[in-house]
Amino acid sequence: MNKRKIINDPVHGFIKIPYDLLYDLTEHRYFQRLRRIKQLGLTHLVYPGAMHTRFQHALGAMYLMSSAVETLISKGMDISEEEAISVHAAILLHDIGHGPFSHVLEHSLVKVSHEAISQIMMQKLNEEFDGQLTTAIAIFNDSYPKRFLHQLVSSQLDMDRLDYLKRDSFFSGVSEGVIGSDRIIKMLNVVNDKLVIESKGIYSIEKFLVARRLMYWQVYLHKTALAAEQMLVHLLKRARALIAKGDELFAPSHLRYFMEQKHGIEDFYLNKDVLDNFALLDDDDIMCSIKVWTRHPDIILSTLAKGFVNRQLWSIEISEQPLKPEIIKTIKEEVRMHFGLKSLKEANFFVFSDTIRNNAYSVKDDKIEILFNNNELKDIASASDMLNLSVLGKTVRKHYICFPKVIKQKLQSNGVLF
Amino acid sequence: MNKRKIINDPVHGFIKIPYDLLYDLTEHRYFQRLRRIKQLGLTHLVYPGAMHTRFQHALGAMYLMSSAVETLISKGMDISEEEAISVHAAILLHDIGHGPFSHVLEHSLVKVSHEAISQIMMQKLNEEFDGQLTTAIAIFNDSYPKRFLHQLVSSQLDMDRLDYLKRDSFFSGVSEGVIGSDRIIKMLNVVNDKLVIESKGIYSIEKFLVARRLMYWQVYLHKTALAAEQMLVHLLKRARALIAKGDELFAPSHLRYFMEQKHGIEDFYLNKDVLDNFALLDDDDIMCSIKVWTRHPDIILSTLAKGFVNRQLWSIEISEQPLKPEIIKTIKEEVRMHFGLKSLKEANFFVFSDTIRNNAYSVKDDKIEILFNNNELKDIASASDMLNLSVLGKTVRKHYICFPKVIKQKLQSNGVLF
Amino acid sequence: MNKRKIINDPVHGFIKIPYDLLYDLTEHRYFQRLRRIKQLGLTHLVYPGAMHTRFQHALGAMYLMSSAVETLISKGMDISEEEAISVHAAILLHDIGHGPFSHVLEHSLVKVSHEAISQIMMQKLNEEFDGQLTTAIAIFNDSYPKRFLHQLVSSQLDMDRLDYLKRDSFFSGVSEGVIGSDRIIKMLNVVNDKLVIESKGIYSIEKFLVARRLMYWQVYLHKTALAAEQMLVHLLKRARALIAKGDELFAPSHLRYFMEQKHGIEDFYLNKDVLDNFALLDDDDIMCSIKVWTRHPDIILSTLAKGFVNRQLWSIEISEQPLKPEIIKTIKEEVRMHFGLKSLKEANFFVFSDTIRNNAYSVKDDKIEILFNNNELKDIASASDMLNLSVLGKTVRKHYICFPKVIKQKLQSNGVLF
Amino acid sequence: MNKRKIINDPVHGFIKIPYDLLYDLTEHRYFQRLRRIKQLGLTHLVYPGAMHTRFQHALGAMYLMSSAVETLISKGMDISEEEAISVHAAILLHDIGHGPFSHVLEHSLVKVSHEAISQIMMQKLNEEFDGQLTTAIAIFNDSYPKRFLHQLVSSQLDMDRLDYLKRDSFFSGVSEGVIGSDRIIKMLNVVNDKLVIESKGIYSIEKFLVARRLMYWQVYLHKTALAAEQMLVHLLKRARALIAKGDELFAPSHLRYFMEQKHGIEDFYLNKDVLDNFALLDDDDIMCSIKVWTRHPDIILSTLAKGFVNRQLWSIEISEQPLKPEIIKTIKEEVRMHFGLKSLKEANFFVFSDTIRNNAYSVKDDKIEILFNNNELKDIASASDMLNLSVLGKTVRKHYICFPKVIKQKLQSNGVLF
Repeated sequence: MNKRKIINDPVHGFIKIPYDLLYDLTEHRYFQRLRRIKQLGLTHLVYPGAMHTRFQHALGAMYLMSSAVETLISKGMDISEEEAISVHAAILLHDIGHGPFSHVLEHSLVKVSHEAISQIMMQKLNEEFDGQLTTAIAIFNDSYPKRFLHQLVSSQLDMDRLDYLKRDSFFSGVSEGVIGSDRIIKMLNVVNDKLVIESKGIYSIEKFLVARRLMYWQVYLHKTALAAEQMLVHLLKRARALIAKGDELFAPSHLRYFMEQKHGIEDFYLNKDVLDNFALLDDDDIMCSIKVWTRHPDIILSTLAKGFVNRQLWSIEISEQPLKPEIIKTIKEEVRMHFGLKSLKEANFFVFSDTIRNNAYSVKDDKIEILFNNNELKDIASASDMLNLSVLGKTVRKHYICFPKVIKQKLQSNGVLF
Repeated sequence: MNKRKIINDPVHGFIKIPYDLLYDLTEHRYFQRLRRIKQLGLTHLVYPGAMHTRFQHALGAMYLMSSAVETLISKGMDISEEEAISVHAAILLHDIGHGPFSHVLEHSLVKVSHEAISQIMMQKLNEEFDGQLTTAIAIFNDSYPKRFLHQLVSSQLDMDRLDYLKRDSFFSGVSEGVIGSDRIIKMLNVVNDKLVIESKGIYSIEKFLVARRLMYWQVYLHKTALAAEQMLVHLLKRARALIAKGDELFAPSHLRYFMEQKHGIEDFYLNKDVLDNFALLDDDDIMCSIKVWTRHPDIILSTLAKGFVNRQLWSIEISEQPLKPEIIKTIKEEVRMHFGLKSLKEANFFVFSDTIRNNAYSVKDDKIEILFNNNELKDIASASDMLNLSVLGKTVRKHYICFPKVIKQKLQSNGVLF
Repeated sequence: MNKRKIINDPVHGFIKIPYDLLYDLTEHRYFQRLRRIKQLGLTHLVYPGAMHTRFQHALGAMYLMSSAVETLISKGMDISEEEAISVHAAILLHDIGHGPFSHVLEHSLVKVSHEAISQIMMQKLNEEFDGQLTTAIAIFNDSYPKRFLHQLVSSQLDMDRLDYLKRDSFFSGVSEGVIGSDRIIKMLNVVNDKLVIESKGIYSIEKFLVARRLMYWQVYLHKTALAAEQMLVHLLKRARALIAKGDELFAPSHLRYFMEQKHGIEDFYLNKDVLDNFALLDDDDIMCSIKVWTRHPDIILSTLAKGFVNRQLWSIEISEQPLKPEIIKTIKEEVRMHFGLKSLKEANFFVFSDTIRNNAYSVKDDKIEILFNNNELKDIASASDMLNLSVLGKTVRKHYICFPKVIKQKLQSNGVLF
Repeated sequence: MNKRKIINDPVHGFIKIPYDLLYDLTEHRYFQRLRRIKQLGLTHLVYPGAMHTRFQHALGAMYLMSSAVETLISKGMDISEEEAISVHAAILLHDIGHGPFSHVLEHSLVKVSHEAISQIMMQKLNEEFDGQLTTAIAIFNDSYPKRFLHQLVSSQLDMDRLDYLKRDSFFSGVSEGVIGSDRIIKMLNVVNDKLVIESKGIYSIEKFLVARRLMYWQVYLHKTALAAEQMLVHLLKRARALIAKGDELFAPSHLRYFMEQKHGIEDFYLNKDVLDNFALLDDDDIMCSIKVWTRHPDIILSTLAKGFVNRQLWSIEISEQPLKPEIIKTIKEEVRMHFGLKSLKEANFFVFSDTIRNNAYSVKDDKIEILFNNNELKDIASASDMLNLSVLGKTVRKHYICFPKVIKQKLQSNGVLF
């Protein structure tokens, strides 16, 4: 059977699956599940094109990996075929552990990060594939000797980022976020077992960092999507509370399994059912259940559910300074009265405040290093005279509060706020 | 409140919502539901990028409508503001009645076509919007005096087609299907109340027809997607049969409502619940339920469900001639034995044969007419010396049979077939 | 020295020069000359973007050749490294013999076709490169045993065509002409030493043929560009006549060399100066000289020159039938009077009539053959049910007449014509 | 006659000429001349796609102007039809005074800047067009009361820049330079008669500034193009010197006119011939003449000419610090000996050293101001926390030296330098 399939991809053109093992991995139900997990969670509520999935992203990142491996080999790097296959497998599976709506519900359904679940699933796959993934897992874990292979999978310039920035810009229609991934990859090199960028690529890196920042504020942290995400998180919290109280809340069994109990990492190892149920979970379970909940008698659950499903989203305010506690209290009080809630505590399901943060470039993490013609290496932050080092390394923090639009109108007409 | 929103669209760039009424329509839960209905049903199983929705398509078609209306007005056509708003509303709502996976399950869940449901929903919206949609409905129905307005919504050159061909090519990554919608729209004119194309646009129309044909065979009728669609149709048929026998099959209530009984058009008018439940239905209900069914004791249901969810799709064979009945019988017999089914009749859930057809250009329907400089009008089929009239007007019919891969391998190794 | 350069190309992205010999060829003054010869002659007078050159086209065709060679090797074709280098060299040099404005002045400056001059220049290069081009020349000549290599350079599906259709659409902005060259190349195969297309590519070929036809009528034979071309041809004819009469007409020496005498192919072999002067000729010599001629006392020369330089182009009429001789005579008579010419013969410099022709697909030449799964081969004209064989094989012939706009206005106001 | 033409543009799609006056301007020989002046001078020697002209750029900037005017009117700005026409005319003609190879030969042929010549040509056109350009000229001069109209034509965010950055990226194939001109234009507003950007557009502006910087170093100041430019400048200098000594150097009369004497601005006013000859000058005159000069007996002229025409360009070295005078002297001495020149002074025609500079954002010039929701205005340099104010405002200066490659090899093999 021919496993060297070619897949049409709107972003990269034709994606070739370069090794049989990779084809077999894509056919596995774990990988197929990624078809049903949107890459950008709820961002499509703001950018309707952003319906693309983790499935497409994983294939796209694999495509860029082929290009990166080819470039490095052409520059004399020593990469064996087994290493090539493994670094492809590692990037293909790097997101395999994501749950419904990617980051949105991380830690809401289980107590485990998606990276940890990716690890667990890769190990399970490694058993099924008779140990063929051992090197891939070592690369993913950064326990493989050639550390630059890990950096291709996870670092400030990994194939993950190069694909997702391009793909997310493409599908959201925010064309300014598009980056020159081809050129960046052509500029890759390895020095002292570390991935570096040749100095001719410095402007491309500057643009990459600026594009990334633009995508953060314009797409990834878009306030309307944030409001939707918080509604969803609180919806599930409320649902969980109702179930705890004995409510026969509608949900497919594999979702209900995680609503009744919040499993930790040890449960994945001890109890086969945890992974089996998780491997069925995706966006559709959440959406399907919430639609049923729109008719639930609990006013908190059904109000959130209707708002969420019909995109009547909460109002959200972003500010440089945290909101004063007394204003938050006023809002909660209004919410309690308006919806006839029993307590201010219940109003917490309708009023959420927290902080968001973004740092475009982490000085602590592995740096992006630029290789000059005299073989000198410099951190991009000092190599670039354009980018503000102190700013790049600094986390930007913003505060938000989110609550029903009807309350905002009320408070505004009373002159209370905003 | 500012209702002149601008929406980012990967296909057209910035989409402006030109009238307040249109904005209000997009905010309605009927329209929001289209976010959860994929434009191309199950095509994403072949072209992973094809996750785009009826929501995006409706906005895109509205965008093209703005451009068409502007062009026609600039050429002296008389289009009042009310007509402009209405023809925009008509195109925005033309697909509002689509059910889960668009065409795939049409007639599987209800006995009514999506157009008829669109009508019903538009009438319901017209009530809610105090009659503001009366003209839009007349245009949609082709009962409005200026018939060219209807043709902008529904004809061989309507904005529906111009958007979907471009959008489907774009998202599937089949770039050859891309058409020059901008140029075609600039060539539109009206003669005797009929939409025509100025003769300078003749090559664009030729290319449009060829691109459409290419999209049919390469995308819309792709055999793997066809196999998936037939599996889904038979899944629901089996589920319905089980429910009829009293099985407490898992499904959200609004889906179960249509599984227990197949409603006709009169039910939509007589019973408010029918529309209320339909207005909650979308792709997610189907996917969520089928995942639960993978664990169902009925071997037919769970086998189809697992194959469908994990993309272990049936084999499909396409031929110019119908398959001989004795071969079909052999296949069914093998299926019966392999899966331990009770009867050949049960094998019908695993072996499907039928025909597909396509005609690129219908000679009977309203024609594409070309306007020459001497004011002569010619049907494109005679105006173009390139395109083969007799072929264009002829329906192409192909036969297919679809059945489990394991059976195919068995029969092949026995030398029985293919 | 690193000769594996990468060149940015707006059409294909990054173009890699895969062999050192190819790099050395691109550095040669013969090849550099192509930078100064526009691919589409005077088409930029209609489509201002069409300033691209034979230089870019040659590199682009070489890029596609890399892709085609890689595809064929991956399908098991036997192509040695020397053959690979040679087929790249052949496509790189296939247009090296083009003169100013490509096809426009072919046969106007010398009596030799551009292919013949390409041959001559390749032989000269072969001497300079110590015989390294011997195989390339054999491939170009179709005297090399593996004939499919020649077909990659020159046939109905050669890399020349695949590049120029895409490039000409791109730069002219006629986006509908864009073809799926990537996909066509991926579908290439070789059967019985002939290049064929696998049947999955049939729709791409249909689209390719339709796009090509569209480009013919919309771009390559655009009537305004045709008028400009004919003016240029007649300009040079007049200039030659004046020189013959002893006029010291301004021209750079290497252009004047060809104005004083029209050399045949034997002259290229017998007299070294012919090639030396030809190797300096390009678009700029023509434009520069014509600007000087705008001030020349000869009314015919200066009128044509001013019209040409300032884009005050002649009127052109296209018709299915040839224009009646008496009408042509009337026009010439009017021209004679209006410009105060001495004779009707002189009016021939201002009034040109001739025919243009186009056939989208030649049945006589090597056919495009489609390879079906059962290994059957069919000509595209019979394999495609869409395309009209009899039409495809038929040459379309149109008649035109071209003359000063002022005369047209005069005749129209007198009711004489058009 | 229909003057509302539509022009295909590879960058913007269809460009509509919105007013009759603008059409008439494009038909004028002054404007047609721009077809023969490459936008990026000699950059095509590095980026072969960069053959685009001032003609295309002027039309593209006019297209963006239509979009900007429409946006501002929709936001309530008061712009009369006469003002709209005039601001379009001003942008259409803003580069009308450019000479051969745009900036490359500025001040080499005349002593006047291209802006001053644009002024002169606009005044001449204003006479021919009976004063219809009076307001356009006032806008261009910044003497029109509504100063934001001037800013649309000339400022840090003018339509000139928005078009050229996009166009230059597009044609050079440096896709990373592409900017979101559509989005920037949609974010334009006017406060206190000044053009500002609404705060939602801040990331687009950041990206615009970074893209501009990237284009500067990667394209506009590309060292190989710089070497070619300097060779051209010195070629003309040498030619002028030879003519001064009485040499009958070949050149078309309208070029020779400027080689014999270097005219100042007053000559344009006093002597009609100056403008008449200038209006015939373009890239082609230079190229045509230099090809003839390759055969000239003067070794300096012919060596430069051959190197330039055949793209055997000088070597160029860029450094942060100026090169030590003794090294420059060593190089000149080597050049003198190698080429058998009479003096070190003659070596100045072969060895050029100077500085290049770039500042991405000028703090002194009119600033880019960001309009926040509270109506506050902030300079982008302080509004953006990403961009380094002190860096943005600082001119980057680099030093270069340029000399024949053969000398570099000699010096390197002697261990003298680099």
